[in-house]
Amino acid sequence: MSPSGSFWVGSVPCLSLGLLCLLGVSFWRAHWHRGFSWDGSALQFNWHPVLMVAGLVVLYGYAVLVFRAPFTWRQKKLTWKLVHAGLLLLALLLSVLGLCAVFDNHRSLNIPNMYSLHSWVGLCTVIMFAFQWLLGLSGFLLPCSPLWFRSNLKPVHIWMGKAILILSLASCISGINELLFFTLNGSSGDPYNSLPVEAKFANSLGLLIVAFVLVVFGILSNDNWQRPETVHESVPLMLNENST
Amino acid sequence: MSPSGSFWVGSVPCLSLGLLCLLGVSFWRAHWHRGFSWDGSALQFNWHPVLMVAGLVVLYGYAVLVFRAPFTWRQKKLTWKLVHAGLLLLALLLSVLGLCAVFDNHRSLNIPNMYSLHSWVGLCTVIMFAFQWLLGLSGFLLPCSPLWFRSNLKPVHIWMGKAILILSLASCISGINELLFFTLNGSSGDPYNSLPVEAKFANSLGLLIVAFVLVVFGILSNDNWQRPETVHESVPLMLNENST
Repeated sequence: MSPSGSFWVGSVPCLSLGLLCLLGVSFWRAHWHRGFSWDGSALQFNWHPVLMVAGLVVLYGYAVLVFRAPFTWRQKKLTWKLVHAGLLLLALLLSVLGLCAVFDNHRSLNIPNMYSLHSWVGLCTVIMFAFQWLLGLSGFLLPCSPLWFRSNLKPVHIWMGKAILILSLASCISGINELLFFTLNGSSGDPYNSLPVEAKFANSLGLLIVAFVLVVFGILSNDNWQRPETVHESVPLMLNENST
Repeated sequence: MSPSGSFWVGSVPCLSLGLLCLLGVSFWRAHWHRGFSWDGSALQFNWHPVLMVAGLVVLYGYAVLVFRAPFTWRQKKLTWKLVHAGLLLLALLLSVLGLCAVFDNHRSLNIPNMYSLHSWVGLCTVIMFAFQWLLGLSGFLLPCSPLWFRSNLKPVHIWMGKAILILSLASCISGINELLFFTLNGSSGDPYNSLPVEAKFANSLGLLIVAFVLVVFGILSNDNWQRPETVHESVPLMLNENST
């Protein structure tokens, strides 16, 4: 099968899994936890898992794959650099908004912040993401970026990109787990250890997120889908608008 | 710097971080939770985090790196395949023993099993690990393994190897987080949200495990430390004892 054909075989499940994760987390918070608002209440907290899964996992996962699509290889690399940076900026903004949702809710209900391991790993993930975005902008888009900086930055950028996705997954799994213990054991309904329908649903959502991240890693690790690098692409891309 | 020199610059922090993780988790369960026993009590449960971190994270991380050490490249590949498989078998046995510790403890204290997302992801990780080990044995060590099978298996083996380490990290972070909520909020001491010394220690242990896994990924993603493949190494290795 051609790289283009086999890429679609891999990317259609990836796109579908990402959308399913987004639908799943939205349905979880809407159906069992009364939906969304931005008023400091538990309804504001509901934005936290939705925005983190949307930004840190799904949109981030889609954004890291844009250079792997063979149909983009004959187009200007700058276009796809801007798509990559744009999607990641949106992902970063959604993640920061997701953090605001939980901090705002904690402040209005007088709940302490930043004590759980989930919160430590989650905050590290978002800080690393913001740092990576700024570093990527300065190294790969700004015209003043020197060549030696760009070539040394590339392997670090690739490694940090994967590291952020790994940390996002660890944050999501620990967050969903923590939330189920809080809400199911703190309510008058069935406790988590009796596996009520909500627990089965949210646990399955966790496995769906795992599957999405592993499929993204599978696509990233396939050498057939590496964009072929041309010599004139090795200069900072704002100087290189006509590269093909 | 030569590949050999730079490999040691990367691997010494990696080895040290792994040992620190192991010391940290052992100290946590020994100092704050009265140490270890194998009698169905909470002291048996203490083996669970220690054995999972030892097997699924530290030993697993060391084992996946053996082919990256430049000093091994001039030696027989079979020797290092056996070291790789042997370390991973030991890692798998420690992980299974870690699962036995928690199941045994739950049975004797009548605590339900396999309801949390942590347990679902953790069990998937160990099952995937066992499957990967058997697949690796049949593809890369058994003399009857056909060449087409080995060459198709290699990228899947590499991807699954990384996937298992990612899932191990997600399992560890969610497990430490869950355990701190259980033990600190269920005891008469300071709750988790007041960040007592144990919480700070175990959260830091979680970050140490994150750092170890990311360093392992950093070493894996460095092309300079890829073992150069020679033609005669592409036959199943039990038939290839004299390869250098």
